[in-house]
Amino acid sequence: MRLRNIPGAREEIQASPYCIQDPASYKGRWPALFQNQNPIHIEIGMGKGQFLMNLAKLNPDINFIGIEKFSSVLLRALQKMGEDPLPNLFFIRMDAEEIAEIFAYQEVKRIYLNFSDPWPKDRHAKRRLTSRQFLERYRRFLSEDGTVEFKTDNDGLFEFSLLEIEAAGWKLNAVTFDLHNDTELNQGNIMTEYEERFSSQGNPIHKLIASRI
Amino acid sequence: MRLRNIPGAREEIQASPYCIQDPASYKGRWPALFQNQNPIHIEIGMGKGQFLMNLAKLNPDINFIGIEKFSSVLLRALQKMGEDPLPNLFFIRMDAEEIAEIFAYQEVKRIYLNFSDPWPKDRHAKRRLTSRQFLERYRRFLSEDGTVEFKTDNDGLFEFSLLEIEAAGWKLNAVTFDLHNDTELNQGNIMTEYEERFSSQGNPIHKLIASRI
Repeated sequence: MRLRNIPGAREEIQASPYCIQDPASYKGRWPALFQNQNPIHIEIGMGKGQFLMNLAKLNPDINFIGIEKFSSVLLRALQKMGEDPLPNLFFIRMDAEEIAEIFAYQEVKRIYLNFSDPWPKDRHAKRRLTSRQFLERYRRFLSEDGTVEFKTDNDGLFEFSLLEIEAAGWKLNAVTFDLHNDTELNQGNIMTEYEERFSSQGNPIHKLIASRI
Repeated sequence: MRLRNIPGAREEIQASPYCIQDPASYKGRWPALFQNQNPIHIEIGMGKGQFLMNLAKLNPDINFIGIEKFSSVLLRALQKMGEDPLPNLFFIRMDAEEIAEIFAYQEVKRIYLNFSDPWPKDRHAKRRLTSRQFLERYRRFLSEDGTVEFKTDNDGLFEFSLLEIEAAGWKLNAVTFDLHNDTELNQGNIMTEYEERFSSQGNPIHKLIASRI
């Protein structure tokens, strides 16, 4: 995705009622923010938020949190929320490496990773959101029956992810190389902006679902 | 592959010096057949044998056994062997379901599965050579550090295989969706007849390597 430096983005994010400024202070008490005990699903690297907003609209009984590193794209999500606010969705601007600092043990039920940065260089492998290092972070706050749902069009990243799930001792629950032609896994699939654009060119989307054992 | 009923095929196989007639009698003493202690690699569903014959030629210090159910294709392999015999290669005509009856515990070091029948119907899943039922059979005779090397162009079969490896408690050591563009895994790759034909159409070959834990 193209990233532009937008003047005033940080300030606008800090002033937004949809954005959590001190997420670590909610660790272990996210239900208090949502004012209910519904399960919490998060997306790491939510970009402009289309996927998560559609999901939140369709699932009012689930609480959603979108995490995004880049102010410029998060700003777009905040603007869309301003037009059509949702009580079960909040955003956080942060680097995913800190993610285990903001959720308590078993506090999250599902983690969505969509078209994550492949970090193609070997020496950057640990930055990939499906690396064993990240899976170890997720293990610290994902519920026992919780899952990671990962979509990508990148062959190399998908292969890497399958091996990391194995190496981390996680369980592979489902896998498809061509999501849009997989009757079962595509049921209820919500496309991201990127997925719409990419798959319209006839390229297959890969998806896997994994759980910590 | 096209299967034709070739009159006399069974008889020719029974008379061939390259074909083992009573394989169960060699269980636990295959080295006696080869007259050495070299590791044993097998291919299940070897078809016309091009892959295995090239492999055997390149690796005189490994013993190879090719297993094939269909007489008509096995016959072609025997004819090729007649033109260019190899001391480290034998064939068996049998149904793979009996495979654990002919090898002893830890007797085989590597199992090759190339473009195996996908058995597309769910109720035939256990016939697929990468099903948990077959993995359980392989466990009974594969050495502790042994591997299964599986190639296919079939997305559904490959996805199924990844899940079965997981379900059977095996370890996924390597995976690629596009073998011919994978510098590492494609090193030394020997193509099967089908692979040559199929990949020349620009279609990707998938490969995985798995080991029993």
